[in-house]
Amino acid sequence: MQRKHLGEHYILELFDCDNKLLNDVEGIKEIMIAAAVAANATIVTKYFHQFSPYGISGTIVIEESHFNIHTWPEHGFAAVDLFTCGDSLQPEKAKSLIIRELKSQNHDYSTIKRGVFKK
Amino acid sequence: MQRKHLGEHYILELFDCDNKLLNDVEGIKEIMIAAAVAANATIVTKYFHQFSPYGISGTIVIEESHFNIHTWPEHGFAAVDLFTCGDSLQPEKAKSLIIRELKSQNHDYSTIKRGVFKK
Repeated sequence: MQRKHLGEHYILELFDCDNKLLNDVEGIKEIMIAAAVAANATIVTKYFHQFSPYGISGTIVIEESHFNIHTWPEHGFAAVDLFTCGDSLQPEKAKSLIIRELKSQNHDYSTIKRGVFKK
Repeated sequence: MQRKHLGEHYILELFDCDNKLLNDVEGIKEIMIAAAVAANATIVTKYFHQFSPYGISGTIVIEESHFNIHTWPEHGFAAVDLFTCGDSLQPEKAKSLIIRELKSQNHDYSTIKRGVFKK
Protein backbone atom coordinates (compact mmCIF):
# COMPACT_ATOMS: atom_id res chain seq x y z
CA MET A 1 0.00 0.00 0.00
CA GLN A 2 1.42 3.33 -1.05
CA ARG A 3 0.36 6.36 0.94
CA LYS A 4 0.53 9.92 -0.15
CA HIS A 5 -0.94 13.00 1.39
CA LEU A 6 -1.49 16.52 0.15
CA GLY A 7 -1.23 18.69 3.25
CA GLU A 8 -0.07 18.97 6.85
CA HIS A 9 -2.31 20.64 9.42
CA TYR A 10 -1.00 21.73 12.80
CA ILE A 11 -3.71 22.23 15.42
CA LEU A 12 -2.35 24.37 18.27
CA GLU A 13 -4.11 24.94 21.58
CA LEU A 14 -2.34 27.73 23.45
CA PHE A 15 -3.28 28.22 27.07
CA ASP A 16 -2.07 30.76 29.63
CA CYS A 17 -1.00 33.30 27.03
CA ASP A 18 -0.37 37.02 27.52
CA ASN A 19 -3.99 38.24 27.91
CA LYS A 20 -3.26 41.79 26.86
CA LEU A 21 -1.51 40.70 23.68
CA LEU A 22 -4.44 38.43 22.79
CA ASN A 23 -6.60 41.54 22.45
CA ASP A 24 -4.04 43.60 20.48
CA VAL A 25 -5.00 43.16 16.82
CA GLU A 26 -1.85 44.83 15.47
CA GLY A 27 0.38 42.71 17.70
CA ILE A 28 -1.40 39.48 16.68
CA LYS A 29 -1.16 40.44 13.01
CA GLU A 30 2.60 41.07 13.32
CA ILE A 31 3.14 37.71 15.02
CA MET A 32 1.13 35.77 12.44
CA ILE A 33 2.91 37.48 9.54
CA ALA A 34 6.28 36.76 11.18
CA ALA A 35 5.17 33.13 11.59
CA ALA A 36 4.29 32.88 7.89
CA VAL A 37 7.69 34.32 6.97
CA ALA A 38 9.45 31.94 9.39
CA ALA A 39 7.66 29.00 7.76
CA ASN A 40 8.81 30.15 4.32
CA ALA A 41 5.21 30.67 3.22
CA THR A 42 4.11 33.03 0.45
CA ILE A 43 1.38 35.37 1.69
CA VAL A 44 -1.54 35.90 -0.72
CA THR A 45 -3.73 38.02 1.54
CA LYS A 46 -4.56 38.52 5.19
CA TYR A 47 -7.48 39.64 7.31
CA PHE A 48 -7.61 40.40 11.02
CA HIS A 49 -10.79 41.27 12.88
CA GLN A 50 -11.12 42.76 16.36
CA PHE A 51 -14.25 41.75 18.21
CA SER A 52 -15.77 44.00 20.83
CA PRO A 53 -14.90 43.94 23.67
CA TYR A 54 -12.69 40.83 23.46
CA GLY A 55 -11.13 38.59 20.90
CA ILE A 56 -9.40 38.56 17.56
CA SER A 57 -9.86 36.38 14.50
CA GLY A 58 -7.09 36.40 11.96
CA THR A 59 -6.51 34.55 8.74
CA ILE A 60 -3.56 34.55 6.38
CA VAL A 61 -4.14 32.95 3.02
CA ILE A 62 -0.83 31.59 1.79
CA GLU A 63 0.03 30.03 -1.56
CA GLU A 64 0.49 26.82 0.40
CA SER A 65 -2.94 26.88 2.18
CA HIS A 66 -3.64 28.99 5.31
CA PHE A 67 -2.77 30.10 8.83
CA ASN A 68 -5.57 31.01 11.25
CA ILE A 69 -5.85 32.31 14.78
CA HIS A 70 -8.75 32.93 17.14
CA THR A 71 -8.12 34.46 20.55
CA TRP A 72 -10.11 34.49 23.78
CA PRO A 73 -8.24 37.06 25.92
CA GLU A 74 -10.65 36.54 28.81
CA HIS A 75 -9.47 32.91 28.98
CA GLY A 76 -5.82 33.55 28.04
CA PHE A 77 -6.41 31.14 25.16
CA ALA A 78 -5.64 31.08 21.44
CA ALA A 79 -6.56 28.42 18.87
CA VAL A 80 -4.15 28.35 15.93
CA ASP A 81 -4.28 26.37 12.69
CA LEU A 82 -1.31 26.07 10.37
CA PHE A 83 -2.34 24.27 7.19
CA THR A 84 0.45 23.86 4.65
CA CYS A 85 1.09 21.84 1.53
CA GLY A 86 4.29 21.20 -0.38
CA ASP A 87 7.74 20.24 0.83
CA SER A 88 9.34 23.68 1.01
CA LEU A 89 7.57 24.89 4.16
CA GLN A 90 8.67 24.68 7.76
CA PRO A 91 5.48 25.02 9.79
CA GLU A 92 7.26 23.88 12.97
CA LYS A 93 9.18 27.19 12.87
CA ALA A 94 5.88 29.07 12.76
CA LYS A 95 4.57 26.95 15.64
CA SER A 96 7.57 27.71 17.87
CA LEU A 97 7.46 31.42 17.07
CA ILE A 98 3.75 31.74 17.88
CA ILE A 99 4.04 29.83 21.17
CA ARG A 100 6.99 31.97 22.21
CA GLU A 101 5.54 35.33 21.16
CA LEU A 102 2.13 34.72 22.77
CA LYS A 103 4.00 33.69 25.94
CA SER A 104 1.91 30.54 26.22
CA GLN A 105 2.79 28.72 29.43
CA ASN A 106 0.88 25.59 28.53
CA HIS A 107 0.08 24.21 25.10
CA ASP A 108 -1.07 21.14 23.22
CA TYR A 109 -0.68 20.41 19.56
CA SER A 110 -1.43 17.72 17.07
CA THR A 111 -0.61 17.26 13.40
CA ILE A 112 -3.15 15.91 10.94
CA LYS A 113 -2.31 14.70 7.46
CA ARG A 114 -4.85 16.09 5.00
CA GLY A 115 -5.76 14.44 1.73
CA VAL A 116 -4.43 10.97 2.49
CA PHE A 117 -4.84 8.67 -0.50
CA LYS A 118 -4.55 4.92 -0.16
CA LYS A 119 -3.40 3.20 -3.32
CA MET B 1 -13.91 17.49 36.95
CA GLN B 2 -15.85 20.05 34.96
CA ARG B 3 -15.07 20.37 31.28
CA LYS B 4 -15.82 23.28 29.09
CA HIS B 5 -14.72 24.03 25.58
CA LEU B 6 -14.80 27.14 23.45
CA GLY B 7 -15.14 25.85 19.90
CA GLU B 8 -16.05 22.95 17.64
CA HIS B 9 -13.90 22.18 14.61
CA TYR B 10 -15.10 19.90 11.84
CA ILE B 11 -12.31 18.50 9.67
CA LEU B 12 -13.76 17.23 6.38
CA GLU B 13 -11.84 15.17 3.83
CA LEU B 14 -13.88 15.02 0.63
CA PHE B 15 -12.74 12.52 -1.99
CA ASP B 16 -14.12 11.75 -5.44
CA CYS B 17 -15.75 15.15 -5.87
CA ASP B 18 -16.89 16.79 -9.10
CA ASN B 19 -13.47 17.71 -10.57
CA LYS B 20 -14.78 20.51 -12.77
CA LEU B 21 -16.60 22.17 -9.89
CA LEU B 22 -13.43 22.01 -7.74
CA ASN B 23 -11.79 24.40 -10.21
CA ASP B 24 -14.76 26.79 -10.50
CA VAL B 25 -14.04 29.62 -8.07
CA GLU B 26 -17.49 31.19 -8.37
CA GLY B 27 -19.21 27.85 -7.81
CA ILE B 28 -17.05 27.09 -4.76
CA LYS B 29 -17.71 30.55 -3.34
CA GLU B 30 -21.47 30.11 -3.75
CA ILE B 31 -21.38 26.72 -2.01
CA MET B 32 -19.31 27.97 0.93
CA ILE B 33 -21.54 31.03 1.41
CA ALA B 34 -24.63 28.79 1.26
CA ALA B 35 -22.97 26.55 3.86
CA ALA B 36 -22.34 29.50 6.18
CA VAL B 37 -25.98 30.56 5.82
CA ALA B 38 -27.18 26.98 6.43
CA ALA B 39 -25.09 26.86 9.61
CA ASN B 40 -26.67 30.12 10.82
CA ALA B 41 -23.27 31.84 10.77
CA THR B 42 -22.75 35.59 10.43
CA ILE B 43 -20.30 36.35 7.62
CA VAL B 44 -17.68 39.02 8.39
CA THR B 45 -15.66 38.75 5.20
CA LYS B 46 -14.65 36.22 2.56
CA TYR B 47 -11.79 35.60 0.19
CA PHE B 48 -11.50 33.07 -2.63
CA HIS B 49 -8.35 32.56 -4.66
CA GLN B 50 -7.98 30.67 -7.95
CA PHE B 51 -4.60 29.06 -8.45
CA SER B 52 -3.24 28.48 -11.94
CA PRO B 53 -3.86 26.03 -13.49
CA TYR B 54 -5.60 24.09 -10.71
CA GLY B 55 -7.01 24.62 -7.27
CA ILE B 56 -8.96 27.04 -5.14
CA SER B 57 -8.42 28.31 -1.62
CA GLY B 58 -11.35 29.94 0.07
CA THR B 59 -11.87 31.39 3.50
CA ILE B 60 -14.96 32.83 5.13
CA VAL B 61 -14.40 34.70 8.36
CA ILE B 62 -17.57 34.40 10.42
CA GLU B 63 -18.44 36.07 13.72
CA GLU B 64 -18.26 32.58 15.18
CA SER B 65 -14.75 31.70 13.82
CA HIS B 66 -14.14 30.50 10.21
CA PHE B 67 -14.90 28.18 7.31
CA ASN B 68 -12.09 27.18 4.94
CA ILE B 69 -11.73 25.13 1.80
CA HIS B 70 -8.79 24.02 -0.32
CA THR B 71 -9.39 22.08 -3.52
CA TRP B 72 -7.18 19.79 -5.61
CA PRO B 73 -9.24 19.28 -8.79
CA GLU B 74 -6.58 17.01 -10.26
CA HIS B 75 -7.19 14.61 -7.35
CA GLY B 76 -10.96 15.20 -7.03
CA PHE B 77 -10.23 16.21 -3.44
CA ALA B 78 -11.27 19.05 -1.13
CA ALA B 79 -10.14 19.73 2.45
CA VAL B 80 -12.74 21.68 4.43
CA ASP B 81 -12.57 23.16 7.93
CA LEU B 82 -15.62 24.41 9.76
CA PHE B 83 -14.58 26.07 13.01
CA THR B 84 -17.46 27.46 15.06
CA CYS B 85 -18.03 28.71 18.56
CA GLY B 86 -21.22 29.38 20.43
CA ASP B 87 -24.40 27.36 20.74
CA SER B 88 -26.46 28.97 18.00
CA LEU B 89 -24.68 27.40 15.04
CA GLN B 90 -25.46 24.23 13.17
CA PRO B 91 -22.20 23.26 11.46
CA GLU B 92 -23.55 19.79 10.62
CA LYS B 93 -25.93 21.49 8.17
CA ALA B 94 -22.96 23.16 6.47
CA LYS B 95 -21.15 19.81 6.38
CA SER B 96 -24.05 18.02 4.67
CA LEU B 97 -24.56 20.81 2.16
CA ILE B 98 -20.88 20.89 1.15
CA ILE B 99 -20.63 17.10 0.75
CA ARG B 100 -23.79 17.07 -1.35
CA GLU B 101 -22.93 20.07 -3.53
CA LEU B 102 -19.36 18.94 -4.25
CA LYS B 103 -20.83 15.52 -5.17
CA SER B 104 -18.26 13.80 -2.95
CA GLN B 105 -18.62 10.02 -3.33
CA ASN B 106 -16.35 9.22 -0.41
CA HIS B 107 -15.61 11.30 2.66
CA ASP B 108 -14.17 11.21 6.14
CA TYR B 109 -14.73 13.67 8.93
CA SER B 110 -13.78 14.23 12.51
CA THR B 111 -14.78 16.79 15.11
CA ILE B 112 -12.26 18.36 17.44
CA LYS B 113 -13.16 20.33 20.53
CA ARG B 114 -11.05 23.49 20.66
CA GLY B 115 -10.16 25.30 23.87
CA VAL B 116 -10.89 22.50 26.31
CA PHE B 117 -10.38 23.65 29.91
CA LYS B 118 -10.11 21.15 32.74
CA LYS B 119 -11.25 22.52 36.05
